[in-house]
Amino acid sequence: MKVGFVGLGLLGSAMVKRLSSQGIKVNLWNRSIEKAKTLGLPYVETLEELFKNEKIIFLCIKDSQAVEEVLKKGSSFLKNRIIIDTSTNQFSKVLEFHQFVKDWGGFYLECPVLGSIIPAEKGQLTILVSGEKEPFEKVKPLLEILAQKLIYFQTPGKATQAKLINNFLLALFMEALASALVLGEKIGFSKEELLEVLENGAGNSYVLKVKKEALLRENFTPHFSLENLIKDLNYASELYQKFSGISLEGALVKEIYKLGVKMGLKDKDFSAIYQVLKNFQFY
Amino acid sequence: MKVGFVGLGLLGSAMVKRLSSQGIKVNLWNRSIEKAKTLGLPYVETLEELFKNEKIIFLCIKDSQAVEEVLKKGSSFLKNRIIIDTSTNQFSKVLEFHQFVKDWGGFYLECPVLGSIIPAEKGQLTILVSGEKEPFEKVKPLLEILAQKLIYFQTPGKATQAKLINNFLLALFMEALASALVLGEKIGFSKEELLEVLENGAGNSYVLKVKKEALLRENFTPHFSLENLIKDLNYASELYQKFSGISLEGALVKEIYKLGVKMGLKDKDFSAIYQVLKNFQFY
Amino acid sequence: MKVGFVGLGLLGSAMVKRLSSQGIKVNLWNRSIEKAKTLGLPYVETLEELFKNEKIIFLCIKDSQAVEEVLKKGSSFLKNRIIIDTSTNQFSKVLEFHQFVKDWGGFYLECPVLGSIIPAEKGQLTILVSGEKEPFEKVKPLLEILAQKLIYFQTPGKATQAKLINNFLLALFMEALASALVLGEKIGFSKEELLEVLENGAGNSYVLKVKKEALLRENFTPHFSLENLIKDLNYASELYQKFSGISLEGALVKEIYKLGVKMGLKDKDFSAIYQVLKNFQFY
Amino acid sequence: MKVGFVGLGLLGSAMVKRLSSQGIKVNLWNRSIEKAKTLGLPYVETLEELFKNEKIIFLCIKDSQAVEEVLKKGSSFLKNRIIIDTSTNQFSKVLEFHQFVKDWGGFYLECPVLGSIIPAEKGQLTILVSGEKEPFEKVKPLLEILAQKLIYFQTPGKATQAKLINNFLLALFMEALASALVLGEKIGFSKEELLEVLENGAGNSYVLKVKKEALLRENFTPHFSLENLIKDLNYASELYQKFSGISLEGALVKEIYKLGVKMGLKDKDFSAIYQVLKNFQFY
Repeated sequence: MKVGFVGLGLLGSAMVKRLSSQGIKVNLWNRSIEKAKTLGLPYVETLEELFKNEKIIFLCIKDSQAVEEVLKKGSSFLKNRIIIDTSTNQFSKVLEFHQFVKDWGGFYLECPVLGSIIPAEKGQLTILVSGEKEPFEKVKPLLEILAQKLIYFQTPGKATQAKLINNFLLALFMEALASALVLGEKIGFSKEELLEVLENGAGNSYVLKVKKEALLRENFTPHFSLENLIKDLNYASELYQKFSGISLEGALVKEIYKLGVKMGLKDKDFSAIYQVLKNFQFY
Repeated sequence: MKVGFVGLGLLGSAMVKRLSSQGIKVNLWNRSIEKAKTLGLPYVETLEELFKNEKIIFLCIKDSQAVEEVLKKGSSFLKNRIIIDTSTNQFSKVLEFHQFVKDWGGFYLECPVLGSIIPAEKGQLTILVSGEKEPFEKVKPLLEILAQKLIYFQTPGKATQAKLINNFLLALFMEALASALVLGEKIGFSKEELLEVLENGAGNSYVLKVKKEALLRENFTPHFSLENLIKDLNYASELYQKFSGISLEGALVKEIYKLGVKMGLKDKDFSAIYQVLKNFQFY
Repeated sequence: MKVGFVGLGLLGSAMVKRLSSQGIKVNLWNRSIEKAKTLGLPYVETLEELFKNEKIIFLCIKDSQAVEEVLKKGSSFLKNRIIIDTSTNQFSKVLEFHQFVKDWGGFYLECPVLGSIIPAEKGQLTILVSGEKEPFEKVKPLLEILAQKLIYFQTPGKATQAKLINNFLLALFMEALASALVLGEKIGFSKEELLEVLENGAGNSYVLKVKKEALLRENFTPHFSLENLIKDLNYASELYQKFSGISLEGALVKEIYKLGVKMGLKDKDFSAIYQVLKNFQFY
Repeated sequence: MKVGFVGLGLLGSAMVKRLSSQGIKVNLWNRSIEKAKTLGLPYVETLEELFKNEKIIFLCIKDSQAVEEVLKKGSSFLKNRIIIDTSTNQFSKVLEFHQFVKDWGGFYLECPVLGSIIPAEKGQLTILVSGEKEPFEKVKPLLEILAQKLIYFQTPGKATQAKLINNFLLALFMEALASALVLGEKIGFSKEELLEVLENGAGNSYVLKVKKEALLRENFTPHFSLENLIKDLNYASELYQKFSGISLEGALVKEIYKLGVKMGLKDKDFSAIYQVLKNFQFY
């Protein structure tokens, strides 16, 4: 099988590696072409070329504005293409993308993923899918290379909504965990002691498992950057406000993450929220 | 082996059942003696009798004020007794308890537990222990009947501190989870859809696992009551304030739990925080 | 002097009354023409007519989207017109309005006001002004009929920014005041007792003065509606986020106001936040 | 008239100056006697001496623990003494003080004040009074030297409750004002511009009036220290929690003030909350 891939950020690159390691031929394009070169796989110089040559095209792009640009540039070649968009989009935008691709004769599958680079490289993501059944069935084998679990919602927009709710919870869990840790350290515990207790108690969670090393070493090399999390939190508030939802602690915690940006942590992993909270405690 | 047991609330009764099912002879006392009768095990009419007759006495009591009363009443019989206090105590009080029991010639083991009635009945608790090594070694086999994991801190007070940090995190995780759920429902998802997504994503956690059924059925039969959680949150703030710790979202979330008391939910499971948040969204 | 006036909501009508009472000839247009009729003043049937006939046109309109529509409709008649826009706008939009009116040969004065219907009727508003000096000097006598104080910022956008900061503070002060009141009532004070103390102490403020009667009688007839305040709070967050500002308690308090919308209070005066907080305390 | 005065902190000294300047003979005692000496007024070396010699004794003391010590030390001389306690006390403690003084044959007037050193020196405080009518009438002329307004609640505890509610609001207003200022500065305004707008708009208040200079110059010489405000906020939460009151933004704002302590601002004026918030914005 052969696919195009647009967007070689941390997550995109991990997915490309996984697909390629499982025998899929991947043809790359990236805005900064240098990144494409380092992966040692075929790449093209222009986006148009990619859309012309490939029937199935993955997108893994920073935000909805960038997705929109890509789709517009590729529009005249969208006929019969299947777009697998793994980006986390704005809810309102993703509905437009379904329509736009359809209008140009193609198929748009909204495929945000749960999990970041480690599960991507191991094919252990969860992929949420919204879009028409037929193209979904066609690309299912590809998605199953990346994911251990697919969750399908026929209605367009649902996958994006679910992803945003998931990342809302991710942000709160991470902040809560970091908060418990720094309070424990303030009281006099070592991080090792605290993590042993918490992983045998209330803290036992996916978030703790995947962030444990980062927290212990205070090494916040990005898997999923603080800036990208804040983008998703903004998309999430936009979403729930549209439905008259409110969130007291959600609003507060978003502001605390934003303090991280002020502290120069935007390109760090979002678990660097630990640094923000530690700063509060140990001025 | 033979032990005394004081305090037959939800958790206490579950521990008694477990000990008894594993061949331990348990002699009971409870403030309202009726509860003791329903368990079908030997019981005594007075606390003094229990302290006189038993060498090893478990406590599982509501709060530190009640623990203090029990210890005072039993004081003249404390000599050579080992007190295993599984209650969640105030940090300052627990230090007094160590001293008090020692002064009367006994041994005090501070043994707060992680987990509530289900793990207690299955012997799958985690027990945090602080106190002298010798009595700890002596009662270890008893603790291992209740727990799959023991975490020992020699310094008095540490086990209580760790327990309070754990329950602080428990409160935040539960509130975050409930918050994500109600926002998702407000947007139009069913709880089943949301839980499937979240348990394959950011929500994957001990808290979700043990509260899933309660949330799905909105059945908040208490395993660990809202009132008891708030007590622990108050003890936790008291603790971290003593060490000049602060918590922005912790302070907010505690107030939200307290709204639950106003709504008449104090004797419900603390996962009934879901009801409080749902009320906000679906006025 | 003769002016056109677009927008006959609560504040617009109050300004029209004041201008008219001081001898200014006011020609009205409103989206629902019925409102124009009730004021007993000249009105026109179409917006275009108003722009054609009047050299100076006041706007007092709900939000920036509506202002935009009005300007677009009137665009071909904007030449040499002075637009006095008293609406509270989005910061980004107001910059476009300056440019748009200029491009069509007119003058745009950004004139958000501090104060609502009572000071408007008495000519005791404060008006913030941004825009070119010359048209400002020309209409100054008109503004002075409405205001006891004019504050001029030459740079476009400044008046709007200042207005949004003002309303941000208004929201916080009002919520704080309501919060102190309901806590006091919960403790057992009457509102009369509390207000006597607070107006002689920390509560002494413009906000208390103008909202005292509303609070005492729990009569929240709108002077400035909850919905409009929330609109301004949204504009304010948009503004400060653009400049990387954050606000912990601002984010929280905005959510609390939104709870008021859920409780059906959106058309009440924003001081009805008292009802929201009272509901929390007296479930 | 002749009085004793215990407690020569910022506020106490200001009250002593006022009383003395109006012809009252004031006899001093202070824990650190040095402070008494600098005022150039008669003083005694021991507390007992003061209680023995004076019929009317003012207290203006840090916290309820310190008040308790003073009353206990003076107990054998309390007979027929009138104690005018201007300290801000814990609600539960103040009820004990009434009883204690009564039991020893004296009269206790609970007299917390609104306003700090400037109004104290000018006799422009508001004094809240609870206690028996007769001794109150007796000392009224003295109180009127200090206050432009007396508010009397017969029921013991009421004055203290009202004072705590007042300071709760004071804390929220101050934080809101500082918050609006720093957001405005972040956007690009000068403090002068902002204060001109706010004092003509929503910010018009006693708090702005008395803190304007401090904010403009960022000079936080204490009139009422951050540490004392936090003490009062703790007393206030204790109070409203006893009555099952809750406060979302109150809980949050208290934590923000505590950040000020971490930043080394505890002895500064509480308006230094501005520094805390500025730090957030301008990392």
